[in-house]
Amino acid sequence: MSAWFVNVVLLSMHLVSASDSDPLQDYCIPSPELSSLFPSSCKNSSFVTVDDFVYSGIKSPADPTKTGFSSIPVSSSAFPGLNTLGMSFVRADFEPGGVNVPHYHPRGTEVAFVLEGMIYSGFVDSRNRVFAKVLEKGEVMVFPRGLLHFQMNVGDTTATILGTFNSQNPGSVKIPSAMFGSDIKEEVLEKGFGLSGKELAKLRKKFLPTS
Amino acid sequence: MSAWFVNVVLLSMHLVSASDSDPLQDYCIPSPELSSLFPSSCKNSSFVTVDDFVYSGIKSPADPTKTGFSSIPVSSSAFPGLNTLGMSFVRADFEPGGVNVPHYHPRGTEVAFVLEGMIYSGFVDSRNRVFAKVLEKGEVMVFPRGLLHFQMNVGDTTATILGTFNSQNPGSVKIPSAMFGSDIKEEVLEKGFGLSGKELAKLRKKFLPTS
Amino acid sequence: MSAWFVNVVLLSMHLVSASDSDPLQDYCIPSPELSSLFPSSCKNSSFVTVDDFVYSGIKSPADPTKTGFSSIPVSSSAFPGLNTLGMSFVRADFEPGGVNVPHYHPRGTEVAFVLEGMIYSGFVDSRNRVFAKVLEKGEVMVFPRGLLHFQMNVGDTTATILGTFNSQNPGSVKIPSAMFGSDIKEEVLEKGFGLSGKELAKLRKKFLPTS
Amino acid sequence: MSAWFVNVVLLSMHLVSASDSDPLQDYCIPSPELSSLFPSSCKNSSFVTVDDFVYSGIKSPADPTKTGFSSIPVSSSAFPGLNTLGMSFVRADFEPGGVNVPHYHPRGTEVAFVLEGMIYSGFVDSRNRVFAKVLEKGEVMVFPRGLLHFQMNVGDTTATILGTFNSQNPGSVKIPSAMFGSDIKEEVLEKGFGLSGKELAKLRKKFLPTS
Amino acid sequence: MSAWFVNVVLLSMHLVSASDSDPLQDYCIPSPELSSLFPSSCKNSSFVTVDDFVYSGIKSPADPTKTGFSSIPVSSSAFPGLNTLGMSFVRADFEPGGVNVPHYHPRGTEVAFVLEGMIYSGFVDSRNRVFAKVLEKGEVMVFPRGLLHFQMNVGDTTATILGTFNSQNPGSVKIPSAMFGSDIKEEVLEKGFGLSGKELAKLRKKFLPTS
Amino acid sequence: MSAWFVNVVLLSMHLVSASDSDPLQDYCIPSPELSSLFPSSCKNSSFVTVDDFVYSGIKSPADPTKTGFSSIPVSSSAFPGLNTLGMSFVRADFEPGGVNVPHYHPRGTEVAFVLEGMIYSGFVDSRNRVFAKVLEKGEVMVFPRGLLHFQMNVGDTTATILGTFNSQNPGSVKIPSAMFGSDIKEEVLEKGFGLSGKELAKLRKKFLPTS
Repeated sequence: MSAWFVNVVLLSMHLVSASDSDPLQDYCIPSPELSSLFPSSCKNSSFVTVDDFVYSGIKSPADPTKTGFSSIPVSSSAFPGLNTLGMSFVRADFEPGGVNVPHYHPRGTEVAFVLEGMIYSGFVDSRNRVFAKVLEKGEVMVFPRGLLHFQMNVGDTTATILGTFNSQNPGSVKIPSAMFGSDIKEEVLEKGFGLSGKELAKLRKKFLPTS
Repeated sequence: MSAWFVNVVLLSMHLVSASDSDPLQDYCIPSPELSSLFPSSCKNSSFVTVDDFVYSGIKSPADPTKTGFSSIPVSSSAFPGLNTLGMSFVRADFEPGGVNVPHYHPRGTEVAFVLEGMIYSGFVDSRNRVFAKVLEKGEVMVFPRGLLHFQMNVGDTTATILGTFNSQNPGSVKIPSAMFGSDIKEEVLEKGFGLSGKELAKLRKKFLPTS
Repeated sequence: MSAWFVNVVLLSMHLVSASDSDPLQDYCIPSPELSSLFPSSCKNSSFVTVDDFVYSGIKSPADPTKTGFSSIPVSSSAFPGLNTLGMSFVRADFEPGGVNVPHYHPRGTEVAFVLEGMIYSGFVDSRNRVFAKVLEKGEVMVFPRGLLHFQMNVGDTTATILGTFNSQNPGSVKIPSAMFGSDIKEEVLEKGFGLSGKELAKLRKKFLPTS
Repeated sequence: MSAWFVNVVLLSMHLVSASDSDPLQDYCIPSPELSSLFPSSCKNSSFVTVDDFVYSGIKSPADPTKTGFSSIPVSSSAFPGLNTLGMSFVRADFEPGGVNVPHYHPRGTEVAFVLEGMIYSGFVDSRNRVFAKVLEKGEVMVFPRGLLHFQMNVGDTTATILGTFNSQNPGSVKIPSAMFGSDIKEEVLEKGFGLSGKELAKLRKKFLPTS
Repeated sequence: MSAWFVNVVLLSMHLVSASDSDPLQDYCIPSPELSSLFPSSCKNSSFVTVDDFVYSGIKSPADPTKTGFSSIPVSSSAFPGLNTLGMSFVRADFEPGGVNVPHYHPRGTEVAFVLEGMIYSGFVDSRNRVFAKVLEKGEVMVFPRGLLHFQMNVGDTTATILGTFNSQNPGSVKIPSAMFGSDIKEEVLEKGFGLSGKELAKLRKKFLPTS
Repeated sequence: MSAWFVNVVLLSMHLVSASDSDPLQDYCIPSPELSSLFPSSCKNSSFVTVDDFVYSGIKSPADPTKTGFSSIPVSSSAFPGLNTLGMSFVRADFEPGGVNVPHYHPRGTEVAFVLEGMIYSGFVDSRNRVFAKVLEKGEVMVFPRGLLHFQMNVGDTTATILGTFNSQNPGSVKIPSAMFGSDIKEEVLEKGFGLSGKELAKLRKKFLPTS
């Protein structure tokens, strides 16, 4: 098996195809060096340490963005100890007026806990009904799996949310960029949103990645 | 138990809270008269007939709408024989140029089969990458669970698709109306989509239900 | 790692041991060259194209067989885009009088849509009750997971069915050949079906593979 | 709510539509008197006793039948303590030469333990390959979910098997009676098994219930 | 249906027998008045409000106990909006030196986030290996489903943890009281733990409920 | 790929990360030589034989231990034919007075069948209520997933139990050794069980592995 072969393998494989069902062992920490080659393997348990089960990367917020919102999503690829255990989480920080744009998680329900601040928070059900209100520090809201939701800091100070998911990789689809920052045929979007070509072009300009 | 009590029950309960997991019996046909009262019950099997397992309501398209698209979604509420069996389906008809606007199904993967026509068909993954192409009659495309997808008839004749789902009630969230035809706080949408108040008002006018 | 080793691996491994539960990522296209070696890996997403999600092999029927029935089952091994997504499908074509013999799918419910023709279609529940009727073009029947079912073209023209399953590999067990074309001890079949040795031999002659 | 109403309910509902997934509570014993009315309810835990979790009905074999085989299947309807716990079991007794005819369980894998005797035991996979051998007392064989299997006492004394399933109601489809003791259209069976009308009639005579 | 009948029903049914699998609808809020009677029903969605999805009861700690530890577990029975969504949570508060005794959750993985303080936190795997360390504010530890875990405030100030589970009712078994505060036969405990009758009696005295 | 590489792989990977959900193929026998390298692969089916599905290692009890109890747990690692099929089993033998100490299985329900003897058998629910009684030969008890249970031979002769699980690897946590034979911080145990340092040391002495 030549070095060429190994390179091909490393290039051509990426994600784990396991699934969020009941685990088959106490835990399964993927081997960091080898998981791209053998993604569904677990480290020999004698090499597992307590640090595999502890995550220290959300003590502080991520750098703020121009929209006044930043987030640190922690799925099983960032925190391998979550592998096969069916959970993951996210820290989200809001400057005053900062907005977490309408988005949804295709593979998980979210329980969102307000660590700091006043957050207008809501979701839209599949009949387009909105359930939203202002949450205070210490309040918890649940966003059912796959439903669109959004948040905005309506207080005068920074706000922080801890979100937890019942999937090790719930995914996240942000509507504005998925719609207007992607390569969907213009005619579909014009007809779908009732936009003129000019109006669509203006919207796309904001979201399309600049090269 | 007074008549008043029964009325309260009929008003206040609606949906079945079962789940798309392995069935616990051969089949479970809800009793049409009683399922609002006792939603997770099955008809006595001696009252079940072959017609409980056959659906005849998608032989013809639904009435066309002004957008040149119509669909007949058939979940377990429309076809009770699907109850507990983990599947449902939809017939979609397109006039030339007709568009099935960007939408997703929160609880199911879709396998779409082109019965007639030429359909531009695609989906957006959670990194905003679009996978789309024109499908001919007899071709099949799969839309992974929870991902945004869309279709447009790019041929000169009507087109028809049969979609099947691995959930008895996959749900459907249509992005344009969920975003601009629902009661989401204006500020969230303005900031989220980078729209002025005037631009948002124009979009909402198209999608908000008129009273 | 010698060439010998690699050959042993290629010979001795075959199927994917993943399962029809919730996916853990948007999609997972197995790498065609490497999936026999590393079956639970996904291609790097930058190598995934729209053609991975489109199947064009059921536009026409398979060659007819002497029983007047032919089918093209499409599971995740034939259409890798289905991998981890929990669905698959089959095209079945019937000459007049053609029969799809009693069979069942051990791992999935089937939704069968009549594309053309008049099909007598039915299933047997686990109390030996038969639910059957003639379906017309455009009608849909559901066969609950694991139950025996069968179909016969009772019209004057060819008939076609599109079946969809809620498993990426539902399997199919055809009763006549599983019973009489397999190597089950004769005494079991004689006692089980109440057949004489001669009667059994006659039945087996039809189904046992000729060498 | 009149007595008439209650009667209708008792007649028209029968089975529980729950599913073999993870339980949501420690246990859920259906109330014997009320479970036909309210099938997915659990008894108040203060009325639950240890006897709800113990089954004493398989200490002795069932009465022997003329085929030299008898069985006592124990699903959650016979042993309510199994409800929501995803398991059930069966005791099977064989006289010398007794046969458990080819059958399968649509909703469960079986682990079969030989309590007494010498049992020829096997299954057929979906490629019609047979895996069979004689088992001795104390040996265990696994029959994968949904695959056809069969057993015959090849010793000189009675034999007994304890089978366990990973479903609270795995179901059982016995091939001879499902095929020839049910109401499947004759033409389907004649073509499917290559039988003449006379041969089929002879087979059916053995299996059709006599009235 | 007499008043007597209704009373029997209310007394004899208690818990929901649904399961932590994929939801079958956007959400399912049990009706507070009727859920003891009809536990698997959902409120009519027109009676659902945003407050059904928000929980405000963990803004402050519960009253401290003599062991310096208090917790507020919030499952779907306390927060009905969680029903069918597969998640729940707990707030735990520790005085300096306070201990959350060794326990486990039979039906869920826990992700524990340190809101305040310094917490010695760990779990024992099924080979009796301990993974433990001191966590600081903002750190996260995962306890795999069903494994024994424990926590102790090792700082000088109060400490608080927010735990989240991937089950709407994960359950909690506290080892000291389950072992020594329950009605297990003395001989089992004496032999199991190697205790004399006197030593066992002393332990039991601490945990048995006083009447 | 050098020999060094292969060694690293063999050392660093151990367990399979599949899950107890529906199988994706008839069966999947891991390749004995290669499963440490490629854990989620299945043997090519042409190399599978009936012996892969038969287990002969529990015909006799294991050697007795000093506590009068011995067990042979058979999960998918001991009996590879169980892989992906969601079941496993255990043989347990008791001398008179022998005790199976309080333990639980984090990933499975157990159905326990008394093969010989008189067994006091019980479990503790999550409210610390004990359900226990003496079982005779031929009786069956179910231990719900994740709940603490225990057994003691209260007869005059040896006793034997066959336990079956609905997981291919249910795990087992024995409370006395997990608590007092593991490396949990002394202070946690002292406070948790209300033990003095001396009392704890005495208990630990019995359970800590001697070096």
